Amino acid sequence: MITLHHCVSARSFRPLWMLEELGLPYTLRMLPFPPRALQRDFLADNPLGTVPLLVDGEVRMTESAAMCQYLATRMPGSPLALQPGEADYGAWLNWLHQGEATLTFPQTLVLRYAHFEPPERRQPQVAQDYARWFLARLKSLDMALQDGRECLCAGRFTAADVSVGYALMLAGHLDLLSAMSPAVQAYWQRLQARPAFVRALAAQHQAALDQGVPVTPAPDTRPR
Amino acid sequence: MITLHHCVSARSFRPLWMLEELGLPYTLRMLPFPPRALQRDFLADNPLGTVPLLVDGEVRMTESAAMCQYLATRMPGSPLALQPGEADYGAWLNWLHQGEATLTFPQTLVLRYAHFEPPERRQPQVAQDYARWFLARLKSLDMALQDGRECLCAGRFTAADVSVGYALMLAGHLDLLSAMSPAVQAYWQRLQARPAFVRALAAQHQAALDQGVPVTPAPDTRPR
Repeated sequence: MITLHHCVSARSFRPLWMLEELGLPYTLRMLPFPPRALQRDFLADNPLGTVPLLVDGEVRMTESAAMCQYLATRMPGSPLALQPGEADYGAWLNWLHQGEATLTFPQTLVLRYAHFEPPERRQPQVAQDYARWFLARLKSLDMALQDGRECLCAGRFTAADVSVGYALMLAGHLDLLSAMSPAVQAYWQRLQARPAFVRALAAQHQAALDQGVPVTPAPDTRPR
Repeated sequence: MITLHHCVSARSFRPLWMLEELGLPYTLRMLPFPPRALQRDFLADNPLGTVPLLVDGEVRMTESAAMCQYLATRMPGSPLALQPGEADYGAWLNWLHQGEATLTFPQTLVLRYAHFEPPERRQPQVAQDYARWFLARLKSLDMALQDGRECLCAGRFTAADVSVGYALMLAGHLDLLSAMSPAVQAYWQRLQARPAFVRALAAQHQAALDQGVPVTPAPDTRPR
């Protein structure tokens, strides 16, 4: 049985969404955000104090984009994975990494220095630098979508769409969606309409209620 | 033939090192840093203006950690890749991502706000926040190395060591090595002693000389 340690709408939403896409059974453990401060006993499970933490038997992972690939390849023959022989295999790996390293990390700077830090430590210049940085890097996503494709790779929905999709979800929380191109906005609308995406949203909501954890993300980062 | 677009000691050192480990033929195109400002025609190759850019026939990639996996799996049977059936497969994917998303990106904040920005835009607080953030996240590397293992996964050198190794190389440029544990420092010493690592250093040096590009990284980030 897979256990996913998760905070509402954090990066750990990626593996949650993947689990719903794949129809795999899982246990969802909800944590208040940030767990490092609000749930100190979590440090025994993950000394970094970060989510996600995914435990699958002997396998223990902390990187959400890596989990997307791991879960997709865990089910032999799943269409969510690409195989090394497929034409888009390199592009698939690239989007898996780009979703996190290039499209999510810069947004965490906006989150930190415009929302989470106490007023005297906020850094409007840094938040603005990295909002711009993020929007500039979205150019490659916009270009990829210009040919009218529904999904990023191989003409089908894959783990790469989950990796990139979460970056767009976070951008919605940070009010950056309106600065995106129509092609990117339409892509994000399509992703949100997927039944597994809807189930993942419902699953985190219900689990938060059941486990007594706030059902909204940290106050300043609610979707607007 | 593979073409790698590279700046001295930038993240593109990862695929360069991989190419040397695998003994694959390649063309190395050197660019001054940052290419977006100093080599405007590069934008025709990569509209993001970032390195690395790796071109392998129809395959075009921009994420250095994804390239490590791509190149390792491009050679069937290479020991640098792990297969989905292997016990450390999940850990391998995790380290591949962690090397970049968790261990390299935070250092680019130090690079930017302590070195690259003009004095009036420097942000010592941010540089310090992310130097600390990086060193805190190194804890998982230190813990993994406590059992005396030589390499991160499967008892052999793999693409995961290249991904994480580059983060340590960058830390050396930023004078963060002395803050690391003896186990992490010893691991980094072992990586630097690899013949393919030495060949990659020599290859970028020679190519920079041949192509009229400065042979050292940007002035403030030379190893100390």
